[in-house]
Amino acid sequence: MVMSSNRVEHFSDHACHHHHHHETAVTIPYEKAAEEVVHRVCMPPEKTTLQKLRHRLSEIFFPDDPLHKFKNQTWINKCVLGLQFFFPIFQWAPNYSLKLLRSDFVSGLTIASLAIPQGISYAKLANLPPIIGLYSSFVPPLVYSVLGSSRHLGVGPVSIASLVMGTMLSEAVSFTTEPNLYLQLAFTATFFAGVFQASLGLLRLGFIIDFLSKATLVGFMAGAAVIVSLQQLKGLLGIVHFTTKMQIVPVLTSVFNNTDEWSWQTIVMGVCFLGLLLITRHMSMRNPKLFWISAACPLASVVLSTLLVVLFKSKLGGIKTIGHLPKGLNPPSSNMLYFSGPFLAVAIKTGIVTGILSLTEGIAVGRTFAALQNYQVDGNKEMMAIGFMNMAGSCSSCYVTTGSFSRSAVNYNAGAKTVVSNVIMAAAVLITLLFLMPLFYYTPNVILAAIIITAVIGLIDYQAAIQLWKVDKLDFVACLCSFLGVLFISVPIGLAIAVGVSVFKILLHVTRPNTLVLGNIPGTQIYQNITRYREAIRVPSFLILAVEAPFYFANATYLQERILRWVREEEERIQETNGSDLKCVILDMTAVTAIDTSGIDTVRELRKALEKQSLKLVLANPVSSVMEKLHRSTILEDFGLEGLYLTVGEAVADISSSWKP
Amino acid sequence: MVMSSNRVEHFSDHACHHHHHHETAVTIPYEKAAEEVVHRVCMPPEKTTLQKLRHRLSEIFFPDDPLHKFKNQTWINKCVLGLQFFFPIFQWAPNYSLKLLRSDFVSGLTIASLAIPQGISYAKLANLPPIIGLYSSFVPPLVYSVLGSSRHLGVGPVSIASLVMGTMLSEAVSFTTEPNLYLQLAFTATFFAGVFQASLGLLRLGFIIDFLSKATLVGFMAGAAVIVSLQQLKGLLGIVHFTTKMQIVPVLTSVFNNTDEWSWQTIVMGVCFLGLLLITRHMSMRNPKLFWISAACPLASVVLSTLLVVLFKSKLGGIKTIGHLPKGLNPPSSNMLYFSGPFLAVAIKTGIVTGILSLTEGIAVGRTFAALQNYQVDGNKEMMAIGFMNMAGSCSSCYVTTGSFSRSAVNYNAGAKTVVSNVIMAAAVLITLLFLMPLFYYTPNVILAAIIITAVIGLIDYQAAIQLWKVDKLDFVACLCSFLGVLFISVPIGLAIAVGVSVFKILLHVTRPNTLVLGNIPGTQIYQNITRYREAIRVPSFLILAVEAPFYFANATYLQERILRWVREEEERIQETNGSDLKCVILDMTAVTAIDTSGIDTVRELRKALEKQSLKLVLANPVSSVMEKLHRSTILEDFGLEGLYLTVGEAVADISSSWKP
Repeated sequence: MVMSSNRVEHFSDHACHHHHHHETAVTIPYEKAAEEVVHRVCMPPEKTTLQKLRHRLSEIFFPDDPLHKFKNQTWINKCVLGLQFFFPIFQWAPNYSLKLLRSDFVSGLTIASLAIPQGISYAKLANLPPIIGLYSSFVPPLVYSVLGSSRHLGVGPVSIASLVMGTMLSEAVSFTTEPNLYLQLAFTATFFAGVFQASLGLLRLGFIIDFLSKATLVGFMAGAAVIVSLQQLKGLLGIVHFTTKMQIVPVLTSVFNNTDEWSWQTIVMGVCFLGLLLITRHMSMRNPKLFWISAACPLASVVLSTLLVVLFKSKLGGIKTIGHLPKGLNPPSSNMLYFSGPFLAVAIKTGIVTGILSLTEGIAVGRTFAALQNYQVDGNKEMMAIGFMNMAGSCSSCYVTTGSFSRSAVNYNAGAKTVVSNVIMAAAVLITLLFLMPLFYYTPNVILAAIIITAVIGLIDYQAAIQLWKVDKLDFVACLCSFLGVLFISVPIGLAIAVGVSVFKILLHVTRPNTLVLGNIPGTQIYQNITRYREAIRVPSFLILAVEAPFYFANATYLQERILRWVREEEERIQETNGSDLKCVILDMTAVTAIDTSGIDTVRELRKALEKQSLKLVLANPVSSVMEKLHRSTILEDFGLEGLYLTVGEAVADISSSWKP
Repeated sequence: MVMSSNRVEHFSDHACHHHHHHETAVTIPYEKAAEEVVHRVCMPPEKTTLQKLRHRLSEIFFPDDPLHKFKNQTWINKCVLGLQFFFPIFQWAPNYSLKLLRSDFVSGLTIASLAIPQGISYAKLANLPPIIGLYSSFVPPLVYSVLGSSRHLGVGPVSIASLVMGTMLSEAVSFTTEPNLYLQLAFTATFFAGVFQASLGLLRLGFIIDFLSKATLVGFMAGAAVIVSLQQLKGLLGIVHFTTKMQIVPVLTSVFNNTDEWSWQTIVMGVCFLGLLLITRHMSMRNPKLFWISAACPLASVVLSTLLVVLFKSKLGGIKTIGHLPKGLNPPSSNMLYFSGPFLAVAIKTGIVTGILSLTEGIAVGRTFAALQNYQVDGNKEMMAIGFMNMAGSCSSCYVTTGSFSRSAVNYNAGAKTVVSNVIMAAAVLITLLFLMPLFYYTPNVILAAIIITAVIGLIDYQAAIQLWKVDKLDFVACLCSFLGVLFISVPIGLAIAVGVSVFKILLHVTRPNTLVLGNIPGTQIYQNITRYREAIRVPSFLILAVEAPFYFANATYLQERILRWVREEEERIQETNGSDLKCVILDMTAVTAIDTSGIDTVRELRKALEKQSLKLVLANPVSSVMEKLHRSTILEDFGLEGLYLTVGEAVADISSSWKP
């Protein structure tokens, strides 16, 4: 090791010396200078393994440099900043004013009017008692208002997580025959979702959710929306015997095998209200100022349909209603958590999948509205906030909650200024829970189905899919895979396939990288792809190749063969055109951003193979990490200082000048 | 689509026009010219989706352009070349001479003397009857000599594949209680290995074996060698009751729980012959001319030990011997293939794992010796040869075979010139099978254990592991994972973990790419990393950033945040040093070799975020594929032609000149 590090110093000393010597010559016009000054490739500044590891880990886990605010602060300031760091409430609470409260009050009431019917509907989507949906709109928003850093996030249950939880749990346990076990598993899954989310945040592993690319999510959400909409046909058609499976085939079978159970009163009422909801949604989308119409419509529909059922009880008897809901606050549920037994694995799996999905939605929504108002949302902190919110929720009869897109959009449009609007919403839900529950007795189930369909149809973003097709075919394939996977197989497998396709795309790019022949643009030092820039011309006796990927084990064989094929083809071309003999191959390493041991072997083999054909191989502009590894593998000693150049132009000038005498 | 492609033309027309206009000015010295001539970024030449797909597929599946020899040939020549392509025997057979035969004869006999004891030993390693090992050294070499393209490959069973087959099959079926079923499964696994190998070659999916990186294989082979050596303690100590498991814990438990079964005669004989074998191996390694010592030693040991047992039968009665071996040629075994029933999945899985492993060894060995003699081995063709060899083998009582490293090394050193040496070896094995089988009756098992240990100890390449540690820590981690995975869990899981770590490394590089600040080297148009090149200086009012990875979904969030952090830090630095205000951020896209839809969103968001801080964002040198996608996503319209430059130097010159008035 000592010898090795000596050599580094010697190497970079030599390089620097060489350079400084010529630095006085900078005023010489460039083209002339190029033949005299050859800039040597420097080694990167030396670092110990520990320093490199530290740098690497800080880039992986702390890319946002979360402590930069704490630098050069007094001790007290540091404490205050630390408190604000962990509890963002301390950031905004001191400056909170009556004017802000007025805005938050209005928006809080607006989202409450959306939250109550949504809560009941989404709980049904997760096969849970409707009251759980209301409980879930009470405790989690309060927890989030203390810990969360987004100002516009509307917290509550969301359709995707509800749906996934419903699917995954009901595949293991029947919610009709074992409702209590099912409820236990739901709380347990919520608890594990929270633990998972909070630990992602604590361990700063938030980048894991980045692997759900936009393409994957577009397909996944569309697939889920289709399935959920079809499932709601149960409520919309008044079918009693319905499958609990979530694939498209059994759902459609259930719909059409039970035509004798269809109830015309239910269908008429459902279609009317669905039409109303869709029209108001459409109006709000065309004119964002009318957001309140679509925000108020669900509650209005609930009230209206309930009134209809109460008034025409005799005629509408066939319509199923919610029935009795218990009054009162969230009961504690920590005693219902389930930490052993045969279904623990299901609960953990469900928790992780719903945890990832709700995290993705929550953080994407938070970032979207933060960008609109130009403030920052810290992903890892949000994960902790959402995680603790779910852990608290699982002990107070709530199921998985996160930042909901529909709620946040309404919240933002209603003029929310801070997270206090969530507190107002929670207060409104509290009043409902304490006093208004009996009013829901006659609310028909069909109206909940209509609300759910309206909500999930917005998740089908066909325009995004078209854009994917236009821009990137493989992204479209990933999107399609997750769509079809969710429709025909299952939610987690559909997601896994889509993530697999996305990762495969990255690997394919590495496994089969582009290699380009570069030519000189006359009169400049610019070397560019000759098929793209027609003015770029080949330099006689040189073959200049650029590789557009790291040299890795996955492409080592390919690159070696492909580069030798370029050389062979170039020689054939020279023979045909009677050009001057090929003497030197320059490898432009600018885009070779990393190298591993197999890659180093490739370079070594390549050099040997070309030497046997009496061709010289030189490297241009290796980046720091590549340079370092080339050096440590002692391959640099084979190349020598003459085998490395800072730019292709200097390599061409220096090598061709060495041939002249 | 029509409108869109119109725009491309317009775009590149404009660009080219712009450039051609200035091409007359090429004689102006560069530095002056740079301020006047701005080279525009061109769109890549237009291609239809189909053309692009074709190009992409041909790069993925036919990177070696296998048909290039067939170009411009007459019809008859094409037929001859085609025949030579599929049966390499037609390439060398016409020029075969007596002189070549003499070399091949000597080397063929040499490898036969190694092949016979190795065949018997490795069959025992796979828990198969010893005779299967001899059968496997007869048919497969003959098949390979017709189809194979390597001249030095010594074909036969190998330790890794034998070991893996033994492990995986004996976890499902006991070879002691159900020897017949076990044998059936072994042939079936061999058949599937052959099918898998041949179809990899036919479908040109050979790059799959590239995912077993060198680092993975070093760790895997060392782990397997340790396990196998420990397993041989059964034979070396004379233990009767031994575990069939392959993890280190049960193996060691078996060794030390059965100390009462240890037999001193066996131990003494084993240690003596093991010492002899190791010493001769060491001598051959130090002086390659003495290769014949280590090549002949196994057979000599077998003969010597058999003689010892025969002569001192009364005293050495405790030593276990091979016993009766049937005389005669390979019996057909196609009727023993097993295509249904409960163990089919095990057979297929074993076939695929042993198929991949033997392919990796065979191709790596073939390439190694081809490189030494400067000829080419075509990976996909080799896969087909090895695959057909195993399919034929499975129908003639052979188990998995491939090119063996030890055999090939001996073959090469003994002066083999063509694949005829394999035919000679097969002939020698034939004679053994027909006439010499009774001679092995008294061969002690302990000698086979010694031969196996000597063979597998060579697989422990600790120097390669040290080199991995020195050059690339993450490669070393992959190596360690496969080593420990094989030792403590199981062969396929150990391999899977190691491949996972290697893939994770690629993903990590993409997820957390390097971003660099570039500075100008005074007097040149070179822009380089300012921390690495101390002479590079920042350009006032500019922040020049280079990103060293594609813009993908996996790093979209990171890159956006990291670049904004660079801007923030640059502004803080300027405040501290009272420098001139930051006005423009240049993103050097040279190493951004690809972009997906999430990446495009990042660029868009970044531009918006910087615009809010009244900073201009321009891109320098986007590569073809990136340029195309930027264009198709219509983000280019936001940037306009002024937002793209061919080099950082031109961007700086052009933008700063626009500020002067």
